[in-house]
Amino acid sequence: MTTDFGLTVDRRQRDVDTDLRRRAAAVVPNGMYGHLNMTALPAIPQFISRSRGARLWDVDGNEYVDLMCSWGPVILGHDDPVVEGAAERQRRQGDCLNGPAPVMVELAETMVATIADADWAMFAKNGTDATTMCCTIARAETARTMILVAKGAYHGAAPWCTPSPVGVTPADRANFLQYEYNDIASIRAAVGEHADDVAAIIVSPFRHDAGFDQELVDPTFAREVRAYCDELGAALILDDVRAGFRLHHGGSWEPLGVRVDLTPWSKSIANGYALAAVTGTDRFREAAGSIFVTGSFWMGAVAMAAGVATIDELGRRDAVARMRETGTQLHSGVLASAEAWGFDVSYTGPAQMPNLLFRSDVDYELAIAFSAEAQARGVYVHPKHNWFVSAALSADDLDMALTGLDGAFGALRARYPRTAA
Amino acid sequence: MTTDFGLTVDRRQRDVDTDLRRRAAAVVPNGMYGHLNMTALPAIPQFISRSRGARLWDVDGNEYVDLMCSWGPVILGHDDPVVEGAAERQRRQGDCLNGPAPVMVELAETMVATIADADWAMFAKNGTDATTMCCTIARAETARTMILVAKGAYHGAAPWCTPSPVGVTPADRANFLQYEYNDIASIRAAVGEHADDVAAIIVSPFRHDAGFDQELVDPTFAREVRAYCDELGAALILDDVRAGFRLHHGGSWEPLGVRVDLTPWSKSIANGYALAAVTGTDRFREAAGSIFVTGSFWMGAVAMAAGVATIDELGRRDAVARMRETGTQLHSGVLASAEAWGFDVSYTGPAQMPNLLFRSDVDYELAIAFSAEAQARGVYVHPKHNWFVSAALSADDLDMALTGLDGAFGALRARYPRTAA
Repeated sequence: MTTDFGLTVDRRQRDVDTDLRRRAAAVVPNGMYGHLNMTALPAIPQFISRSRGARLWDVDGNEYVDLMCSWGPVILGHDDPVVEGAAERQRRQGDCLNGPAPVMVELAETMVATIADADWAMFAKNGTDATTMCCTIARAETARTMILVAKGAYHGAAPWCTPSPVGVTPADRANFLQYEYNDIASIRAAVGEHADDVAAIIVSPFRHDAGFDQELVDPTFAREVRAYCDELGAALILDDVRAGFRLHHGGSWEPLGVRVDLTPWSKSIANGYALAAVTGTDRFREAAGSIFVTGSFWMGAVAMAAGVATIDELGRRDAVARMRETGTQLHSGVLASAEAWGFDVSYTGPAQMPNLLFRSDVDYELAIAFSAEAQARGVYVHPKHNWFVSAALSADDLDMALTGLDGAFGALRARYPRTAA
Repeated sequence: MTTDFGLTVDRRQRDVDTDLRRRAAAVVPNGMYGHLNMTALPAIPQFISRSRGARLWDVDGNEYVDLMCSWGPVILGHDDPVVEGAAERQRRQGDCLNGPAPVMVELAETMVATIADADWAMFAKNGTDATTMCCTIARAETARTMILVAKGAYHGAAPWCTPSPVGVTPADRANFLQYEYNDIASIRAAVGEHADDVAAIIVSPFRHDAGFDQELVDPTFAREVRAYCDELGAALILDDVRAGFRLHHGGSWEPLGVRVDLTPWSKSIANGYALAAVTGTDRFREAAGSIFVTGSFWMGAVAMAAGVATIDELGRRDAVARMRETGTQLHSGVLASAEAWGFDVSYTGPAQMPNLLFRSDVDYELAIAFSAEAQARGVYVHPKHNWFVSAALSADDLDMALTGLDGAFGALRARYPRTAA
């Protein structure tokens, strides 16, 4: 039977979610905002009740295998016992205090010991805090103004970087120049007459613009960007907020052997606790110490204890290799299902952070219908954003995910009989 | 006897703090940064170990009555059982999820029910997130650019508002005009030719620029600002990040009866849990829903549960009245001690958030020495920033504070025999 959302199975109750959406609409503009806003995606539950390992439950009690991982932060799995134990031990001491707790030093030492290009670390709360700090540090060190960003790249939601122009003024963007990812010529063209005023080039470890096919970095491009930054005297900022610790334990460009100057981190560094960080090399240490940045909760000790435990456990469990392996199995399974049901899909990006799109899919119609069918079958995926694999995803979880996604392709084929590849 | 820090009592061990400062200096630029940076104040412990109620302990085990309250966030007292119970119940369910938990709706409903000028609420992590969001919402609603800020006021640490110019470019500040607090003529002068391009005026509930005497708002000024915003069609943004819930339970200008359009909140709204919020009136609801702002941890459910419990408990305990009363006793006691020891001090601002300065104090020499002597006697105060009273401060805590502060004045008199008023 078909539900209100056009789903071909009806195992999803939605009464509580519907009621909460109604209440939220009265007290929150549009009922929700930002990347967790499901207003335009009614088949995806807006409100989540609880989580554990690689599973989560919506407010109506429906269970899901989690392939979004809270959009990145959850990397060892929800409610990881080691991380939660470390957080609880710190919580018994104190969290938000008149100064940092000793764990701040431990976390900085852990990051410096773990991350190849980290001679020092600073901490904040949002990924946006960290990307903005990198820009400020680069400008302080170089006494220059302009920063290059890739067209369409997401570096946060402050006025200088938010994807929406609403409420943003030209001055907020005046110091930024745009280039095309993986295209060194476009960087040189964007720099143009500003060669002596470039403070930094920001680059994502791979191209992960939401709603588009992902694109791995061309190693030649990475080396050329490094060389060009050296030529200009500019900082190379590797934005590892989204991908950090999923691709490599010591920085996402470590496998390329390309050195970076400044790196913003957030999302997965504390397995869901609110934490962001900037790491940098000695060249930028004095500049980093010369800027004024702070926040009421930036020294929150519980998130830092969670951060130390997360980084240690990721290494101890060889989590990157595990996520890559699970992600590779997910890749094969999804492609096999798509082929069996006759869909022409593009499945792009690293195995740990894949993006599924349907080719010739106008306005994401197929992607949205597919994710609705997947959700109806207990697999939490998003139609316009890359998914995230966690280290908690077991063989059973993967089976459940692949079964659900195969069912979703099948249901989609029933709804779109003429969309065959 | 005299310690290394010039203290006249020697009850403060500092070995662990000294060692942590040394380790931090290797892995954090300057060893520390931001408002919790005590590098220039070696007599104040940099690292804090634990906290409970109105007391905290540094890493060497020295105990303090806490008159800083983590620079504001702690308002019911450290480790409040009701807040921690609510946080723990939510933690067992989940914190950082693929969508908000139901508690987001509860928190928004609580704020709308509690705060006079709140028709809706949005949430974030930093006070800076909230002040920045207010600017963006005001610009989105008015389709205008310029925002007026009071000279010397602190509205956060993003490039547009950080007190330091290092790494900041002219474009970051291009859309801001400065006025003098409590001076409507200075606002009119600052607006000048921009009358049809003013999106908002930001104002703090009272003048609390760090390092200066505080100044209560002139009610006439508050009414004039409101009227002028109406005349211009601009938003009145009341920055309640620092003072919110300490002066009034429903917004800091409620006692004046002056309506405000947008209010950023943070610090004390969740008793130390990382949370920020924006509330606004219906006029700005659509604009608030039209901007793109978000953060990986903004929907963290544990902080929201702590927020609901904090706001409810503040009301239930009549916390504002309690803090005002304790603060008034602190005021009387400090002034009596200062007079008895012959110091000419200025003790300014609301009783709950007082600021102590010494008149004719070159480079804060007396203030710094006084705070060092206070710390040595187990009273945690800061020499250049307003203090914060919490609702947990008992009669015993107050006695300990006043005894310690009296001792600090006495020690200061011994060190500065010629500084008599």
